[in-house]
Amino acid sequence: MSHRRIGVLGGMGPAATADFMHKLVLLTPASCDQEHLPVMIANLPHIHDRSRAILGQGEDPWPQLEAGIELMNRIGVGVLVIPCNSSHHWFDRMSACSEAPVLHIASASVSAIAATPASKVAIFATRGVISSGFYQQALARRDIGFWVPGPTQEQEHIDSCIRLVKAGRLEEGGRSLELALRGAQSAGADTVILGCTELPLASQYVPAPQLTLIDSSLELARAAVAYGLERRWNTAPWIAPPD
Amino acid sequence: MSHRRIGVLGGMGPAATADFMHKLVLLTPASCDQEHLPVMIANLPHIHDRSRAILGQGEDPWPQLEAGIELMNRIGVGVLVIPCNSSHHWFDRMSACSEAPVLHIASASVSAIAATPASKVAIFATRGVISSGFYQQALARRDIGFWVPGPTQEQEHIDSCIRLVKAGRLEEGGRSLELALRGAQSAGADTVILGCTELPLASQYVPAPQLTLIDSSLELARAAVAYGLERRWNTAPWIAPPD
Repeated sequence: MSHRRIGVLGGMGPAATADFMHKLVLLTPASCDQEHLPVMIANLPHIHDRSRAILGQGEDPWPQLEAGIELMNRIGVGVLVIPCNSSHHWFDRMSACSEAPVLHIASASVSAIAATPASKVAIFATRGVISSGFYQQALARRDIGFWVPGPTQEQEHIDSCIRLVKAGRLEEGGRSLELALRGAQSAGADTVILGCTELPLASQYVPAPQLTLIDSSLELARAAVAYGLERRWNTAPWIAPPD
Repeated sequence: MSHRRIGVLGGMGPAATADFMHKLVLLTPASCDQEHLPVMIANLPHIHDRSRAILGQGEDPWPQLEAGIELMNRIGVGVLVIPCNSSHHWFDRMSACSEAPVLHIASASVSAIAATPASKVAIFATRGVISSGFYQQALARRDIGFWVPGPTQEQEHIDSCIRLVKAGRLEEGGRSLELALRGAQSAGADTVILGCTELPLASQYVPAPQLTLIDSSLELARAAVAYGLERRWNTAPWIAPPD
């Protein structure tokens, strides 16, 4: 059974999911509605804070993530993407539960660095993602040098940026992000992975980032759209699921 | 059985649905993810052109709309909204199929005119919506005078605007919309219902509309968010559907 549509397990957070959906639409070459890709989005904002849980400071979101994956299984999708970096701490368990293949946001983001001669890549993410280590591993596998923000310096600006974006205060978030970017530049980074899907929403308020920014949300959207277009899901003659 | 989440039957078109989702997020007062409303979105772009079908010029979208409603029934939602005005030609049939109540986009939009002393309201929509007549009826029920664009004058600019937005050409769409707005102003309208969810995407490129614009997508989003907040769906402790 093949469901010719993209599944998005979102709501972590909701603004990042809306941004992700907008990116899916913009990335699809289409001159009318019928040339677009079918997408099913579960915007489930009540999943416990992923970063805090990874750090052992909050409730376990796994039962909720599992329920979200099961919901997507019940809906029926051909591929699953989760526009939340921190939730990828549970990637192997999510993949095991999902009937559809799950695309990894860090693989998509690190692949995007291929074309640039990056010597040192800063990882901007939640403390949970940094602690989980999957970005460090993905970069190390490709022999790309990386830099992790100081926990009492740049990381505080990153935490603040994420919190402000989740509260709808994008422009203020941009100012926090700018401070973190200055720190990364001083540390010799030439590229920054915006490894939290809230960060790209703030980055549009940074007038001159000076560094190459890799938008993890955009790269995951590119991977999802490519997956759908390769399988010609944009030419589906009919919307009913093949149940 | 009550599902504490908003259902969105979308993809008509996809950019309008992404815009609608963004509006749902912005309209919800929340300082963190967990204070947002759960939303399930079906972005189904392959539904046949609604306006052409109403005019007897295209394939019948009803079986596809019905399949979309059945998909939302299967997912389980507490209220259903469809950010596509033309599809409301089939509103009674959609409501009859849906297990959840369906909010009407024209009711939401016409309600928004209440606060203004509108003497003449221009209806900007697809030719199908104009022919269907539900905006005229909703305005007449409230004793609000209305004006319908001339089919070979302003309506051509409106058609062009919708087509350009669906093709991702928002700024050009804005120029077409501006021409239609000038016609409405010359005809003595003081308020314009943007009764097609593509039109608000173009309206942001109109520098000085001169008329009060009622955004049907925004008004439907407001109605959906109010519905969810009244029922405190933003405080759901758990995401799993009560199956």
